[in-house]
Amino acid sequence: MRGDAGLPEDAPISAVRRGALVESVHRGRLAVCDPDGEVLESVGDPEAYIYARSAAKPFQALPLVLSGAADAFGLTDRELAVACASHNAEEPHLAAVRSILEKADLTEDDLQSGAHLPLYEPEADNLVRGGEGPRPIHSNCSGKHAGMLAVCVHEGYETATYRDPDHPLQHRILDLIAEVCGLREDKVLVAGDNCGVPAFALPLRSFATGLARLTTGDVLPDELEGAANRIGEAMREHPFMVAGTGRFDTELMDSTDLLVKGGAEAVLAVGSPEGWGMALKISDGSDRAVRPAALAALGTMGVEVPEAVSSMRGLHGETVGEIEPLI
Amino acid sequence: MRGDAGLPEDAPISAVRRGALVESVHRGRLAVCDPDGEVLESVGDPEAYIYARSAAKPFQALPLVLSGAADAFGLTDRELAVACASHNAEEPHLAAVRSILEKADLTEDDLQSGAHLPLYEPEADNLVRGGEGPRPIHSNCSGKHAGMLAVCVHEGYETATYRDPDHPLQHRILDLIAEVCGLREDKVLVAGDNCGVPAFALPLRSFATGLARLTTGDVLPDELEGAANRIGEAMREHPFMVAGTGRFDTELMDSTDLLVKGGAEAVLAVGSPEGWGMALKISDGSDRAVRPAALAALGTMGVEVPEAVSSMRGLHGETVGEIEPLI
Repeated sequence: MRGDAGLPEDAPISAVRRGALVESVHRGRLAVCDPDGEVLESVGDPEAYIYARSAAKPFQALPLVLSGAADAFGLTDRELAVACASHNAEEPHLAAVRSILEKADLTEDDLQSGAHLPLYEPEADNLVRGGEGPRPIHSNCSGKHAGMLAVCVHEGYETATYRDPDHPLQHRILDLIAEVCGLREDKVLVAGDNCGVPAFALPLRSFATGLARLTTGDVLPDELEGAANRIGEAMREHPFMVAGTGRFDTELMDSTDLLVKGGAEAVLAVGSPEGWGMALKISDGSDRAVRPAALAALGTMGVEVPEAVSSMRGLHGETVGEIEPLI
Repeated sequence: MRGDAGLPEDAPISAVRRGALVESVHRGRLAVCDPDGEVLESVGDPEAYIYARSAAKPFQALPLVLSGAADAFGLTDRELAVACASHNAEEPHLAAVRSILEKADLTEDDLQSGAHLPLYEPEADNLVRGGEGPRPIHSNCSGKHAGMLAVCVHEGYETATYRDPDHPLQHRILDLIAEVCGLREDKVLVAGDNCGVPAFALPLRSFATGLARLTTGDVLPDELEGAANRIGEAMREHPFMVAGTGRFDTELMDSTDLLVKGGAEAVLAVGSPEGWGMALKISDGSDRAVRPAALAALGTMGVEVPEAVSSMRGLHGETVGEIEPLI
């Protein structure tokens, strides 16, 4: 018995150490690119595809600015940030999502994000204690869905079918991702994300290049540069709105000038105003491996970052191990 | 940047597929051995160490029978099974743990398992709804701790210090693991488990060999064979007590004649009365990868098992991907 699936080249990237041994190891791939698509650093094969998942949200929010919907509805930067968020469903997140919907003359009933308990445990516990089930607004993606709906209202697109890959909004998003990342549209692969809208797959290098462009505006046509700047600034000025209490995206944006967005299955997208983008994928999809690997890689790029090694605690509060970068 | 930590050889073992692509991949190591230590099947390096974690619980329960404590206190097979469990904290589990404690003239206050919310979500929700925090009895390890305490009472060992690696009970457990697995004692490495008792690391091959012996009694001295049979039968006759509703260990024992015990960081121990043991470790510690890999490997061993591929559902109930074995 021996597995061999012709899988993309990756490398050990984070490890969990217990006592004298490495107990578990996470492999990953990483590319750092400039806006011209030059690979500055890499781990594994930068040409192999990853699903960007929620790390694509800043791209998915571009039509909100480009269509004029953000201006027409008077959306605030906090609201733009929550439209790019995988949020904790803390009260400020819910308030911002509600506000986007109200401004577009919609209600929570229009949201088709699907429902899951708030990512932030105290808010999840509140709902459980109240005997309430989660509603679509509690989904970490509800800001993205509210933003998509606002574009539909502004453009006169059908709102009921906005999740359909053939809906004009979804076509527009696909075009934009391809354009910003410098790929032909048919090179961006589409599948279904868990919240029911398209999920996009593209080579790590292209995604990193797109992040460099999104953050700097370099190489982009003027209108797109303006929209990218507005989205990027909204996120970087309101890190809490992009994720929330205790979340790595928020922590990292709070302490640096980077644009940071995580995605499901352990994807991390980073853009630096200094002119590079970084895309990271933990091969096995484990979120715990993202932080040490990302901090080590960012350190290599000259970013001042917190300590990459962190302790793991047992049920008696004692240290039972460490999670550490291997790059 | 390129990780290289001199890590043990493993191989792709399970994959998560979304749309046209493998989104995430899990690597692993596996050994199937007979009671003489012959490797019948393997993936990766069978000589490299793993922490057995909770998959060692059937071994950790041996002193309960060997010391005479199980007989002296009149423990039932259900109680022996919960002493080997990583249980869901459903009512039958809590009742069995309480009963062990009462029979040994102890109370919940003697348990030093640490506290975490019940693994079974409806029970966790019940506690949250009631505004209660979890107590040590809700820990998935509380049966193991109750069993350890019962041995201490029976043997006249100090109960307050039973978690200490230098406590006579912990020495005895280490000796037994070494003996059953056919290793010199100093070849079994000890670290701290999350519940505060020793965690044992040993080569995959030795652990698989120990599981073959534990399940068949082969190669073991008579007294140990008797204790192994009693523990193994208790588990196989009461699969619910070993884990609980919706758990893989329980499902697999319900539908086969195997002894099955999972452990944290994605370890699975299996013993077959037909004369082999299997030890599986997912390299990255992801539980979701255990089921497909284990079912594929068990199929290879001639066990009739359920379908190894399973669907992943999105928030709208639609299929968004599959998790499948790569071996």
